[in-house]
Amino acid sequence: MKPGLFITVEGTEGVGKTTNMDFVEQWLIAKGLDVLRTREPGGTPLAETLRELLLAPREEAVDPTAELLLVFAARAQHFNQRICPALAQGKWVLCDRFTDATYAYQGAGRGLDSALIAQLEKVVQGSLRPDCTLLLDIDVNVGLERARSRGDLDRFETETIAFFERVRACYLARAKAEASRFRIVDASQGLDDVQRDIDRVLAELTQR
Amino acid sequence: MKPGLFITVEGTEGVGKTTNMDFVEQWLIAKGLDVLRTREPGGTPLAETLRELLLAPREEAVDPTAELLLVFAARAQHFNQRICPALAQGKWVLCDRFTDATYAYQGAGRGLDSALIAQLEKVVQGSLRPDCTLLLDIDVNVGLERARSRGDLDRFETETIAFFERVRACYLARAKAEASRFRIVDASQGLDDVQRDIDRVLAELTQR
Repeated sequence: MKPGLFITVEGTEGVGKTTNMDFVEQWLIAKGLDVLRTREPGGTPLAETLRELLLAPREEAVDPTAELLLVFAARAQHFNQRICPALAQGKWVLCDRFTDATYAYQGAGRGLDSALIAQLEKVVQGSLRPDCTLLLDIDVNVGLERARSRGDLDRFETETIAFFERVRACYLARAKAEASRFRIVDASQGLDDVQRDIDRVLAELTQR
Repeated sequence: MKPGLFITVEGTEGVGKTTNMDFVEQWLIAKGLDVLRTREPGGTPLAETLRELLLAPREEAVDPTAELLLVFAARAQHFNQRICPALAQGKWVLCDRFTDATYAYQGAGRGLDSALIAQLEKVVQGSLRPDCTLLLDIDVNVGLERARSRGDLDRFETETIAFFERVRACYLARAKAEASRFRIVDASQGLDDVQRDIDRVLAELTQR
């Protein structure tokens, strides 16, 4: 059995992640591949409950270290209960956000030490990393306008422009530092052009 | 202002923690001290929600690393939002369980590496440790019989005798290794004798 790949999709608010996750999932299924589509935080009943706790606006100030540990608690549950078993069965795993988001949001966004994030990444994942990360990139103002037009905002979506600028810059820096894993897609293009770019990435991946 | 002390109360199931927490709290209040009584996991609205998630029996197997990270997420929130501010105001903090319980339950009980727990302890607490830890000690079978007679069991109370034997042994080993911080109280005695022993510990502490 040919092993499946672990693909993650990343990007800031309003970048079109859901629409393009649908596209990637359908593309892989059309190739006859067995796909687990999932997301972080979330992906198991317990981890989805943690997602709700993380995203819900709340009166209580959330300590940044508590937020980081919650993200990795949800990840440990999801990684060990769903992602690893699926990969072991030869499935392709398609995940909406993963640890790059932690470096971007809790690291660059909240200002937590990336060495601490790297420490937790190793504790939870060992040496396993995504095989390919699609980074949908867009101007932060354009993306936020799209996201905010959708209605109720979660605890992250109410952050400042400066917060999201740091998140985007971190994503781009990571993509540059790990060019063989990342593929950057310009999400300011029309949807047809975005998906033509994604098609190219997927064609390359499935020919490996 | 004379600073308050940070006192934790530890012990396995059915050891009489709640009754004796009441006793300690009343004792300190009677001395005219300003006391924050709290507990772990818990102590803030978010951390109490995490407590419920940790204790609730669930069909989904809980990954031990996820459990450990959840415990420390709740601790980071509680420690930074409540314990440290209270100590900074000169209050005495009386906490039902703290990080010794993590070494005992997640470390010895679940078999997680104590070096990892020490790493997380440092991340969350820096160098701050309780000033005094009261360890209520009892034969595991006697304690469990008491606890189980109270009715519905949480996710920990349904563990095996062998699990609680490891937890108790870890508590006793920690008490031995840190003899200046721990005070062991024989909880198999009648309540009057237990509280006479606790009274002695508190008299010593408040004369420091």
